[in-house]
Amino acid sequence: MKAAINTLYEQKLAELKAQIEADKLPVALTIVTVGDDPASKVYVRNKLRLFEELGLPCHHIVMPEVGTMQSDLDVLAANATHPILFQLPLPNGLVAPDLPAKVDVDGFGSEALGLLVLGHAPVLPCTVQAAIDIIESHCGENAFSGLKVAVVGRSNIVGKPLVIELINRQSTVSSFNSRSDMAAVDWSSFDVVVVATGYHGTLNSDQFVEGQLIIDVGINRIEGKLVGDIHHHNEQTTAAITPVPGGVGRLTCLNVLGNAVKLAAL
Amino acid sequence: MKAAINTLYEQKLAELKAQIEADKLPVALTIVTVGDDPASKVYVRNKLRLFEELGLPCHHIVMPEVGTMQSDLDVLAANATHPILFQLPLPNGLVAPDLPAKVDVDGFGSEALGLLVLGHAPVLPCTVQAAIDIIESHCGENAFSGLKVAVVGRSNIVGKPLVIELINRQSTVSSFNSRSDMAAVDWSSFDVVVVATGYHGTLNSDQFVEGQLIIDVGINRIEGKLVGDIHHHNEQTTAAITPVPGGVGRLTCLNVLGNAVKLAAL
Repeated sequence: MKAAINTLYEQKLAELKAQIEADKLPVALTIVTVGDDPASKVYVRNKLRLFEELGLPCHHIVMPEVGTMQSDLDVLAANATHPILFQLPLPNGLVAPDLPAKVDVDGFGSEALGLLVLGHAPVLPCTVQAAIDIIESHCGENAFSGLKVAVVGRSNIVGKPLVIELINRQSTVSSFNSRSDMAAVDWSSFDVVVVATGYHGTLNSDQFVEGQLIIDVGINRIEGKLVGDIHHHNEQTTAAITPVPGGVGRLTCLNVLGNAVKLAAL
Repeated sequence: MKAAINTLYEQKLAELKAQIEADKLPVALTIVTVGDDPASKVYVRNKLRLFEELGLPCHHIVMPEVGTMQSDLDVLAANATHPILFQLPLPNGLVAPDLPAKVDVDGFGSEALGLLVLGHAPVLPCTVQAAIDIIESHCGENAFSGLKVAVVGRSNIVGKPLVIELINRQSTVSSFNSRSDMAAVDWSSFDVVVVATGYHGTLNSDQFVEGQLIIDVGINRIEGKLVGDIHHHNEQTTAAITPVPGGVGRLTCLNVLGNAVKLAAL
């Protein structure tokens, strides 16, 4: 899968570059961080680097952990004229402002999510878009209709919006969460399994069979090593499982650019 | 099930009456219809009658089928100061305006649906609320967590928002649609099956077993008789199946009042 993800990444990047040039799109991004969460630093650096490589403006607003108030974030949101994102997690009970869809590059706000339910969201949350991209690339763009997909995890930023988008595409979707009787599920019965719980070991690689596509959304640090939500028992897995790192996360970062392009083209 | 639905209806109505009196809530509703769809007439009459019985104001705006323009509906929506609904279906390509959540008594608009995804919708779509009410009444209010629910149908007004609400309540949810391989599904493996396709015969009563709760959302007219989406093969069904008419539809009508009360209490 690593090679397939790389190819997909390069293809998408080339398409985005071509679109930006052809349509002369004013693509720009503002990233707001509060404090210095170490994982956030890596994610933000990757996004900044991508915009920089393409010569596109990407502003990084760094707010102090001590003294930053909700109203400070709300003012930034209210004045946003181009795509903006508030890097999660935010400290001290601060919450990301509920952005209007036209600047909501993460697609996390109520307007973007409501439009998603109605089937005309301007952008999908970046990780949801990554999962869709991988399914489309692996199974074919006409594969969604009738595709049997399991989505494990029910977060507002991955699990729930992914279920909605898959339903929009006429897939047969099953949603599981921590209260589901996971042991009783025949995971081999699904064409695609997406695991997005944030817990390493939610499922094991030997629960899957040849012909299945398994998308591992998790990024967890275990004993200093980055691992996904899926525990790899051995190297003999015959299912196609996306790697961590270098899988969903890499495409998610690219989709921030992809979403900024979509919003610029509105 | 008919008796259970009646009891639930009477309980809910009594609770709503008590709440309106105790909190002196200014409950009101405007219903807009365009043309004279015969099914709509029945639904609208039932809603009007319910408000009338309680001495609550319910305005009915009737627009002609010929000559009514989208902008006429949009003006009504823009000026709404209390709960309003546009009775579906609308003729001539007219669409219901996308209402702000605070007056969106049907919960069909993008703001209400976006808030639903985030887990804090002011109201659920009335039929979704009816399904939730029936599950809660039949299975217990603590039953949702881990409950295995199948939702058949993926409309914007029932299937999709019901899936989202059930995920919010930590149920294990499977969503099916016309592209799903229905014949391969073991329907008896679910605790609850909700059928909302609008097609009579989507599933048959003998596909269910004792102990299951089956919620039939459909209202179809076949040879002059009202029937649900489920075809009843015989009278020996041991599963609890909601009747049509007198099942979900009855509660849906009551939930228009319930939602108007919730919006008045905001």
